Amino acid sequence: MCGFIGLISRDSNVAYDLYVSLSTLQHRGQDGTGILTFDGNEFYVHKGIGLVSEFYNEQNLSELKGRIGIGHVRYPTIGSDPKKDVQPFITYNPFGIGICHNGNLVNYNQLKQILLKKHNRRMRSNNDVEVILGLFASELQKVCKEDTCSENEVFEALKNAMQQINGGYSCVSVVADKGLLAFRDQNAIRPLVFGEKIVDGKVVAYGFASESVALDTLGFRIIKDLEPGEAILVDENMQYYSKVVVRGQKRACMFEWVYFARPDSVIENKGVYEVRLNLGNELAEIWKKKGIKADVVIPVPETSKTAAVSFAQAVGLPYREGLIKNRYVGRTFIMPHQKKREFGVRIKLNPVVREIKGKRVILIDDSIVRGTTSRKIVDMVRNAGATEVHFVVTCPPIKYPCFYAIDFANKTELIAGEKTIEEIRKEIGADSLTYQEIERLKHAIGVGNNLCMACLTGEYVTDVSEEQKKLLGDTRDKERSEWKEAKAAV
Amino acid sequence: MCGFIGLISRDSNVAYDLYVSLSTLQHRGQDGTGILTFDGNEFYVHKGIGLVSEFYNEQNLSELKGRIGIGHVRYPTIGSDPKKDVQPFITYNPFGIGICHNGNLVNYNQLKQILLKKHNRRMRSNNDVEVILGLFASELQKVCKEDTCSENEVFEALKNAMQQINGGYSCVSVVADKGLLAFRDQNAIRPLVFGEKIVDGKVVAYGFASESVALDTLGFRIIKDLEPGEAILVDENMQYYSKVVVRGQKRACMFEWVYFARPDSVIENKGVYEVRLNLGNELAEIWKKKGIKADVVIPVPETSKTAAVSFAQAVGLPYREGLIKNRYVGRTFIMPHQKKREFGVRIKLNPVVREIKGKRVILIDDSIVRGTTSRKIVDMVRNAGATEVHFVVTCPPIKYPCFYAIDFANKTELIAGEKTIEEIRKEIGADSLTYQEIERLKHAIGVGNNLCMACLTGEYVTDVSEEQKKLLGDTRDKERSEWKEAKAAV
Amino acid sequence: MCGFIGLISRDSNVAYDLYVSLSTLQHRGQDGTGILTFDGNEFYVHKGIGLVSEFYNEQNLSELKGRIGIGHVRYPTIGSDPKKDVQPFITYNPFGIGICHNGNLVNYNQLKQILLKKHNRRMRSNNDVEVILGLFASELQKVCKEDTCSENEVFEALKNAMQQINGGYSCVSVVADKGLLAFRDQNAIRPLVFGEKIVDGKVVAYGFASESVALDTLGFRIIKDLEPGEAILVDENMQYYSKVVVRGQKRACMFEWVYFARPDSVIENKGVYEVRLNLGNELAEIWKKKGIKADVVIPVPETSKTAAVSFAQAVGLPYREGLIKNRYVGRTFIMPHQKKREFGVRIKLNPVVREIKGKRVILIDDSIVRGTTSRKIVDMVRNAGATEVHFVVTCPPIKYPCFYAIDFANKTELIAGEKTIEEIRKEIGADSLTYQEIERLKHAIGVGNNLCMACLTGEYVTDVSEEQKKLLGDTRDKERSEWKEAKAAV
Amino acid sequence: MCGFIGLISRDSNVAYDLYVSLSTLQHRGQDGTGILTFDGNEFYVHKGIGLVSEFYNEQNLSELKGRIGIGHVRYPTIGSDPKKDVQPFITYNPFGIGICHNGNLVNYNQLKQILLKKHNRRMRSNNDVEVILGLFASELQKVCKEDTCSENEVFEALKNAMQQINGGYSCVSVVADKGLLAFRDQNAIRPLVFGEKIVDGKVVAYGFASESVALDTLGFRIIKDLEPGEAILVDENMQYYSKVVVRGQKRACMFEWVYFARPDSVIENKGVYEVRLNLGNELAEIWKKKGIKADVVIPVPETSKTAAVSFAQAVGLPYREGLIKNRYVGRTFIMPHQKKREFGVRIKLNPVVREIKGKRVILIDDSIVRGTTSRKIVDMVRNAGATEVHFVVTCPPIKYPCFYAIDFANKTELIAGEKTIEEIRKEIGADSLTYQEIERLKHAIGVGNNLCMACLTGEYVTDVSEEQKKLLGDTRDKERSEWKEAKAAV
Repeated sequence: MCGFIGLISRDSNVAYDLYVSLSTLQHRGQDGTGILTFDGNEFYVHKGIGLVSEFYNEQNLSELKGRIGIGHVRYPTIGSDPKKDVQPFITYNPFGIGICHNGNLVNYNQLKQILLKKHNRRMRSNNDVEVILGLFASELQKVCKEDTCSENEVFEALKNAMQQINGGYSCVSVVADKGLLAFRDQNAIRPLVFGEKIVDGKVVAYGFASESVALDTLGFRIIKDLEPGEAILVDENMQYYSKVVVRGQKRACMFEWVYFARPDSVIENKGVYEVRLNLGNELAEIWKKKGIKADVVIPVPETSKTAAVSFAQAVGLPYREGLIKNRYVGRTFIMPHQKKREFGVRIKLNPVVREIKGKRVILIDDSIVRGTTSRKIVDMVRNAGATEVHFVVTCPPIKYPCFYAIDFANKTELIAGEKTIEEIRKEIGADSLTYQEIERLKHAIGVGNNLCMACLTGEYVTDVSEEQKKLLGDTRDKERSEWKEAKAAV
Repeated sequence: MCGFIGLISRDSNVAYDLYVSLSTLQHRGQDGTGILTFDGNEFYVHKGIGLVSEFYNEQNLSELKGRIGIGHVRYPTIGSDPKKDVQPFITYNPFGIGICHNGNLVNYNQLKQILLKKHNRRMRSNNDVEVILGLFASELQKVCKEDTCSENEVFEALKNAMQQINGGYSCVSVVADKGLLAFRDQNAIRPLVFGEKIVDGKVVAYGFASESVALDTLGFRIIKDLEPGEAILVDENMQYYSKVVVRGQKRACMFEWVYFARPDSVIENKGVYEVRLNLGNELAEIWKKKGIKADVVIPVPETSKTAAVSFAQAVGLPYREGLIKNRYVGRTFIMPHQKKREFGVRIKLNPVVREIKGKRVILIDDSIVRGTTSRKIVDMVRNAGATEVHFVVTCPPIKYPCFYAIDFANKTELIAGEKTIEEIRKEIGADSLTYQEIERLKHAIGVGNNLCMACLTGEYVTDVSEEQKKLLGDTRDKERSEWKEAKAAV
Repeated sequence: MCGFIGLISRDSNVAYDLYVSLSTLQHRGQDGTGILTFDGNEFYVHKGIGLVSEFYNEQNLSELKGRIGIGHVRYPTIGSDPKKDVQPFITYNPFGIGICHNGNLVNYNQLKQILLKKHNRRMRSNNDVEVILGLFASELQKVCKEDTCSENEVFEALKNAMQQINGGYSCVSVVADKGLLAFRDQNAIRPLVFGEKIVDGKVVAYGFASESVALDTLGFRIIKDLEPGEAILVDENMQYYSKVVVRGQKRACMFEWVYFARPDSVIENKGVYEVRLNLGNELAEIWKKKGIKADVVIPVPETSKTAAVSFAQAVGLPYREGLIKNRYVGRTFIMPHQKKREFGVRIKLNPVVREIKGKRVILIDDSIVRGTTSRKIVDMVRNAGATEVHFVVTCPPIKYPCFYAIDFANKTELIAGEKTIEEIRKEIGADSLTYQEIERLKHAIGVGNNLCMACLTGEYVTDVSEEQKKLLGDTRDKERSEWKEAKAAV
Repeated sequence: MCGFIGLISRDSNVAYDLYVSLSTLQHRGQDGTGILTFDGNEFYVHKGIGLVSEFYNEQNLSELKGRIGIGHVRYPTIGSDPKKDVQPFITYNPFGIGICHNGNLVNYNQLKQILLKKHNRRMRSNNDVEVILGLFASELQKVCKEDTCSENEVFEALKNAMQQINGGYSCVSVVADKGLLAFRDQNAIRPLVFGEKIVDGKVVAYGFASESVALDTLGFRIIKDLEPGEAILVDENMQYYSKVVVRGQKRACMFEWVYFARPDSVIENKGVYEVRLNLGNELAEIWKKKGIKADVVIPVPETSKTAAVSFAQAVGLPYREGLIKNRYVGRTFIMPHQKKREFGVRIKLNPVVREIKGKRVILIDDSIVRGTTSRKIVDMVRNAGATEVHFVVTCPPIKYPCFYAIDFANKTELIAGEKTIEEIRKEIGADSLTYQEIERLKHAIGVGNNLCMACLTGEYVTDVSEEQKKLLGDTRDKERSEWKEAKAAV
């Protein structure tokens, strides 16, 4: 996942606004955070481990001078070194370029070799974004002979860099003496919105962000989602220039609406909350055909609550928050292995027994990855006295690995990659199991075929050879995260 | 507020269980936390500032040896020194007694003087519980001539101490070489439950907690809520002794159900989630009489969500979570004054514009204290495009200060203490304002007259003279907390 | 070892003066430090691990309010818990008493049992001083019936306590509402000086300290060393009262002059620097009789430098600092075992080869404990090219354990406890070995028989049965410190 | 000042050896420290504020992998940002180059502009070494077309870079895939030694260091001091290549022997301890001519002790360490302004009154900069009872600013820059004042005219125009340090 924000202000320092805005993207990553600013002369960076509210303080925010800057929240990934890999990254040659991103590269290892052998650039981290930065910087150095360069030269260098990159990525960057630059891969897989703040009829700031909510909070108006392969450069005089530097078909990640994004965000002009209500209504249609009787609709917190509300209304059953999540058992909650087994999912979820006992319960969840957590939840609901437990999932079966965002784990670890729905039902111990359908998912989102659904269909947007898939599985283990764990921790 | 847990286990160290359990009570206090254990020989204590998940680690938990212990989470109070006042407290004379509590004393200052002048005991903190500990220790020293003492002597000493104390309080205590002791004031104002863990038909542990959820999570069965003035001592051989040491009428704080407690807790045998559904239904009755038309029901997060669900169902309108809370803007989120004014409530709440625009919105909140936050929320909803905003409150008007839990601020700061409902409506800028009614509140809770509703009625459970009220207002300022702020931060 | 200071000022806060003063006693203990103050109402304490300059900062010093206070530096001891055992200690009953000490109790374990069984006082630490505090507090509680007590009652209580204590100890204590109290064991084994600060002819402050230098630095005048068994109480009106509460013969620890104390301190009216010059002169007398020829006198840093200067002058040889100590390899310098072996003593000492090569070297050291370090130093000097190495020791052979200060390790670990001088010479690899003589040591110090020399002679000042010696060896292992290591680290 | 070490080992990781070695250079800088290693693939860096023994721990040392690395200790400079300016510095383009240095550049500002405008390299710090690194990296990029480069290309690039640099500097650098590189300015102003470690007749490691003691401690043999303008590259196969890349006359800083270096170091084949003995003997010659009578010779600690020993012997007076330094009042010792004035120099120095009282005292110090500290010391010695105080200085009057090491402050702040010796004597309150003579200084060191004595004579080794002097005075204020303060803190 990961989330970022970039701001350029006509008159004010941007550090505090970046900080506030980052806190609204915290659900996209709790592992680390960083802010980089530029004051026309020097770069200032503070980045490290922890939540936005933990890491920043008056001291380090006051040191982040300048009216142009970028900020990042990092998703926890296993095996990577959080101290080395936390963003933004910076190079001081040429000019000084700071950058952060959201996404994943398919040909990361090849690009790293090219940078070392062809451009003499050694990477200091294992982070995709450093490779993007290295390519962009090397191309910029080639294109710009003078000690500064024009907008067209920036776009030219970016084009040369992006043509070599295979993956899904959105980036925001500070280019010293040029301005704030954002760009999105040629399929627009990962989200990126552009907005402006208007005071007394005048634009006082421009911003880019992973989600619209990050700009909303600052009182911005959303101008647009960037097009596939589009780059926008806002210069230091608050002029902006846009160019589609590489062309491609829009293929927005469907999982942003289903799970990643905050409900109050709007992606590709589709409100996330609204899409989730639609998902619930679509599921209700499927459910009604099954003719199963039930007493209560209970969401598995947090994401599926919205769909559960519309589902309950549509099937005419009461909506009850019968599973209470312990919000304080998060990222930093330690637990010895033996205790983990003893307490299990109970540490994070507690049933409201009086809403469950003696009832036929419909549980709504947003997805099933390995199935182990689902099993524990079904058991817990039965132990709380449910007479029947029906499991309903707002997303269709996830059968294939993702190469453009966070890995869902190997195909062999995806329960739906190997098993039939009936087999999954048995494994999670539910009385019935109802999945969303792919066409209904598309209908609920409402952007037609402009979706990446590779994890559902196996049809990858960019070239991913079988070999590469295996290679990735082996060598990028450290990039793979226990996303379900992390999700529970949000 | 504050929350605590006490455990005695037949065979196992209790530190990890206290830690897990405390995390379920974190909503009762995020300022500080502490755990104290006793291993038959020595006391071990770790306490400090921060969340449970932040403060504890493998190192300090492993140092907390012993199969008997208590833990506490502390509510932030302005002016007190969190480093000095964080619980548990301990005295090494006589025997060694560790203690923590939830509540407030009316005659704190007098008792502090008595301890210094009569018992030569100097207090090291400004914490109520140290006074309770000092009195209990002094009386125990008097009662027990030998180097140990009987159950009856413990109850006798406790009686002598409790007879001097005026206030609402629940306590749990480790008495070295005796066992785990819990006691509750003579009106049972503050909650306290007793439970046991049974494995293979045998009791392996007993526990006390502020809320049932703390014991649920550990797999305990709730035995009972303690009676007014009751003390229970579980000795080191797992025998327990109960005695009502001071007598009084039960007057449980109604605000536990309305706001304080977690929805999955059960207090005085009444489920909190259920009571909140009832509160929504009761409000719907009032609302329906008003004949106002509306389009959507939106809760002000978090507590009022449950009542909003039942209210929406009862009035036949859709329930929508149209205000999204930023969970990451909490306790430690810094913000310069100017930025606070600039961003306002927007930092913490963001509207889902598409669910609000062009609609007549019913907002459900649990209470109005000063009114300033309510005003900002109404404004925000209007700015998001609501054509009408109707404000509905699950709790009746709070008109009087509380002396038994957290101060709501002075009477002059309570908007309902000074103004009529129509004046309040104008001040918060709503199109209509609907409060819960006192009789309906009682009906929703369902424990008859066994309630403390002093903050609604001004009828105090214990002796609180006018002079004392003023005195408290002056000298205990530091104990008064911006509870509404803190609540928003949860 | 350990060091302490106590101050009472007419008008000013004492925290900063305690802090400055403690830094001059840092050589007596680098493990931890603490300051306690009392402002007439509350006690303030900050204590923890680390050097004085590391642990204190503007924040914690400013919180230590009050014109009366005590401070401590702690010597590192193996096995004890530095977090629990760091001084000062405090009890809040009766009155509030803070205390710190320097010394060791022979009957610690018995006293701990008496306190628990007879006085119901449980100890929270394994520190001697808590036992002294517990006894004094219990006796004070018995003696003073009222909420305060007279000077005579304080002395009476102290007498009752001290009569039960067997050991060598000096203490300084704050008694709330009474003043600053210092007392010394009946043989005055451990040092304790009393001083005053005079401004414009008026006493503005009184102070007590382990060494005179601590008071010198603050501009105080030394009044006297406390007598055996003497207690002095300075009350809050700056009146002072003195009384010998238990009687005994003065037996000051000879090792204070030889090694412990700073050269600029004066103990029992004998300057430490002067005594060390005398030690060098006495040794020269012995040396001259041996008729050995040599070229240069080199001290083993740090303590023996003074004696080496006078020795060199007396024997007519040049004094050269041919071994340079790395002052930065101290307490916190980590080193894996394998590297320790590889580098050996070289990490801490480096030879000035040009002052050693081709020369007959006389090395002066203050003592030999186990002999292993001496062996390494002799080897290093030979490797640097010395043709002969003669080892001269300013202290006579240490043959017996000490029960009044720091343990020198078991008798079996003391090389002089088991071996002849010739055997020791062989073991450390020197060409000759010359020890100080006991009578010459007495002569050099110049206080006649008022010395404790138990570690040289085995004649203990207080009752130490053979059984006790064994018992101590076994159960107080944690109190035994690698003093030679620690010394090297200073 | 600053100090560094560079190591390349045939087989072993170098981190621990760098760490041990750095501790022996700690006297050259206590502000910050850093170690950088390279394992053939990745760079590892840990750098930060604090002493070597404070900053490193098992964790960060174990992360510093690789058999080639460099380490640095940083001298405190006022106004610079220790977090930004702490060394080593690194660039990842080309190849990856890590570097650290000791020295000062005269044309720093011009070079910074050239790098930005001509090479598009933006500096991230205000540190000289980053400019050296930037020039070297830019030239290397130009010279080496391939993805690696030959020894000659490295020397060629270095030559191009060094020809642009005006100043005094010694550097050690890791060049990825090439090896360990050291180089010294064309006048060899700042020290730099080269050594090897031989085990069983085979070279197992090579090393470079600011002082020989850093290599001694590791058991190395010194091969040589680098020549003016010489560069030595040890490649990964342990072959070494040497070349004088820029030519010039040797002008070693005389202050290294007088004050900077450790007594056990050897610089330009002259032992520091020996030179200081010579300085004392030379001073004795001057003193004897004056015919003043005195009783005792007392050094002002620490550096002047060696000269005081030989001086005392030569004039036939006893040597006494009559001023005891508090070694624990260092870098981190806080003190409010008012207390500083109250305690003055007394916090850091304490007189041994019995060695001073009634005596005619000769004080030996290594230099007088502003004169304020000297005044305080003279006063203190008089207050301790000295009947006369004679001040003798081992270094001739410092009259001019230094541009090659640490600034001594502006010329107007140097007391000898403005005043006659008689005026200085009056200002410091001594009965007589005796300075070293320049010719005697040269004689004592014994390297002929190969000395930089610009601070004594005003004859600068490199081109320093009057304008530049003023410019430096203005814009590099932050680089100027209270060196005398810092010295006292060592």
